[in-house]
Amino acid sequence: MREVAVIGAGMIKFGKTPEYAPARMGGDAARIALEQAGIEPNRIEATFCGNIGNAPNLAQRINGEMGVSGIPAFNHENACASSSAAFRQAVLAVSKDIHDYALVVGVENMTVHIAMGVVGSGPLVLPHGANLEADNGMLMPAGFSLTGRRHMHEFGTTAEQFGLIAVKNHRNSALNPYAQYQKVFTLEEVMDSRMVSDPLTLYQCCPIGDGAAAVVVTTAENARKHTTRPVFVRGSVLTSGKYKASAEGPPRIEACVTAAQECYDTAGIGPEDVDLVELHDCFTIHELLAYEDLGLCPKGEGGRFIEEGLSDYGGEVVVNPSGGLLSKGHPIGATGVAQLVEVVWHLQGVCGERQVADAKVGLTHNGGGFGPGNEPGAMSITMVST
Amino acid sequence: MREVAVIGAGMIKFGKTPEYAPARMGGDAARIALEQAGIEPNRIEATFCGNIGNAPNLAQRINGEMGVSGIPAFNHENACASSSAAFRQAVLAVSKDIHDYALVVGVENMTVHIAMGVVGSGPLVLPHGANLEADNGMLMPAGFSLTGRRHMHEFGTTAEQFGLIAVKNHRNSALNPYAQYQKVFTLEEVMDSRMVSDPLTLYQCCPIGDGAAAVVVTTAENARKHTTRPVFVRGSVLTSGKYKASAEGPPRIEACVTAAQECYDTAGIGPEDVDLVELHDCFTIHELLAYEDLGLCPKGEGGRFIEEGLSDYGGEVVVNPSGGLLSKGHPIGATGVAQLVEVVWHLQGVCGERQVADAKVGLTHNGGGFGPGNEPGAMSITMVST
Repeated sequence: MREVAVIGAGMIKFGKTPEYAPARMGGDAARIALEQAGIEPNRIEATFCGNIGNAPNLAQRINGEMGVSGIPAFNHENACASSSAAFRQAVLAVSKDIHDYALVVGVENMTVHIAMGVVGSGPLVLPHGANLEADNGMLMPAGFSLTGRRHMHEFGTTAEQFGLIAVKNHRNSALNPYAQYQKVFTLEEVMDSRMVSDPLTLYQCCPIGDGAAAVVVTTAENARKHTTRPVFVRGSVLTSGKYKASAEGPPRIEACVTAAQECYDTAGIGPEDVDLVELHDCFTIHELLAYEDLGLCPKGEGGRFIEEGLSDYGGEVVVNPSGGLLSKGHPIGATGVAQLVEVVWHLQGVCGERQVADAKVGLTHNGGGFGPGNEPGAMSITMVST
Repeated sequence: MREVAVIGAGMIKFGKTPEYAPARMGGDAARIALEQAGIEPNRIEATFCGNIGNAPNLAQRINGEMGVSGIPAFNHENACASSSAAFRQAVLAVSKDIHDYALVVGVENMTVHIAMGVVGSGPLVLPHGANLEADNGMLMPAGFSLTGRRHMHEFGTTAEQFGLIAVKNHRNSALNPYAQYQKVFTLEEVMDSRMVSDPLTLYQCCPIGDGAAAVVVTTAENARKHTTRPVFVRGSVLTSGKYKASAEGPPRIEACVTAAQECYDTAGIGPEDVDLVELHDCFTIHELLAYEDLGLCPKGEGGRFIEEGLSDYGGEVVVNPSGGLLSKGHPIGATGVAQLVEVVWHLQGVCGERQVADAKVGLTHNGGGFGPGNEPGAMSITMVST
């Protein structure tokens, strides 16, 4: 196994840009990553793209935007974890000596999905009557709100504690020029926003949006030739599993617990040494669950963890300095790589006003497909360090 | 690099089955492959699925059908080559000691795509105005018909020679119980069927359909423990490239020429030693092009090759004994693995009436996304042998 490093990271501002062709979005993010890496596009030996709804052959079309052809190009779909799966394959390809330089791109133009009628009737909710729960209204917010309610019942977690997560993440995004939104909300504003699925109010739910992000990976040995600030991949785990219904015990996502443990074991670095985490806060409830499932705090203490500011700047670990899915945005296929971009930029110390001081170890957490209908999902955990 | 073998291959009958949930289709094909391999589903360490339109997380849902969870599961989209890309990643994972047993599944329920309005307005034709040619009618049949016309102009190929390919493949499919169609047509019937895009008549175009196929791969060393008829992977190449317009020389798909050469070089086995080929005859014209691009005959002689019966039983190499995409069917994500299943079964000698006698070396050819609009496509070539 060769040690793997990220030598370039780039993204475009998330937002609603239905006219921005997905291949161009991906190409633009890729060019920024390549520029930061200081290498020409033709140095790339394989491209791994994560995307849900902008098929076909998006990786090839992104390569085409850069004038690159004739290399293996893979398109990965793993729901919200699509580009995390792409990243893992790129890391394996480099570590196993299949390629020396690989490009990973996450892209999603969701507003085009919607224009095509795909979201809602399509991929985000399973067709075929295979998902009786979803057919009957158990969509993503409903699934998480039930989990939140169970957490409140089991541990005395309050609706306001969930709300505080939205306050934190929206506040963080105000300092992130790449975020879809840059608006600060008070707890009162969060709690008073439109109810989506009790206890989830609107500002506690991630938006629809478009975006792209890219990273360039190579061997640690090569990395030192290209940059004085390489970021090393300490662990990259992708697994799958079902969401454990609360009837089976305290609410948790078992696949997260096992993937995180595997990642910590591989890295030889535990959660207590992580400086920042970009995690999958599709809804505030998922961020709170992840505090516990990632071992940032004990099971049941997520409410206290946010209330005491331990997941904020000045706390134990900065969670979602980017603003997270809640406010940076969640163009699905882009999310996994965008999380990595944020973490890499912090480890490189280039995050300006939102910089996590002295960041040395970062973690990304990305779960795809957990929620309604007890469908099996994909869970990705990646650790990087200076 | 560890040597890799296929130890089980399975598929379900192709057809139009809108009520058959994609995960169940994939699970049914996988169970047949696992049964042939003689291993339990929980022996699988990773699942690689190829699919275009039945997202999200189809690999996880297929695993769920078999009661498998907690393993890495990847979903690949590479247009028609989707499950070929999945297969290549599985082969690399086994050869590079990442996994010992991997499941590869190709699935597509296209009739559900159509019910959802996705095919036509969706993935199979690029949205975003990015593809001016397609917007103006240069759909797949039109792209190939222009190529065919150019071939006729350059080499004197006749419309009837293209038609003979449809006659052969429909005749082959009549002996294949897994084929979507089992109907024999005369050349006259092929030529008299409805004109789609001159010179392509209806029976020279592959149908819309649903299907699934699966293979189990492991190391050559393990393979011998499980079966007396392992099939060894001699080469598996995935590349990308643009279709070369005829203005740049005789019609050919450059990525096919280079991928085939790389595969022959890796295997140390040339086209002259191949006993059967399953190739991407989405339209008869593509089969004729592939004869030449794969080196089965010299450039320009594809017409003669089919007319003299050299791609038929009793000829030099049996091409598309399954009936090919034209008549076995072309449920997009299923196609790559289904080609492998057919070739593996011939090498195992279990193909009954359509068995290619004494088959020892088989090739699959699968191109995804070549055609209209000069979009970059994916090209997969795989060689297997007894």
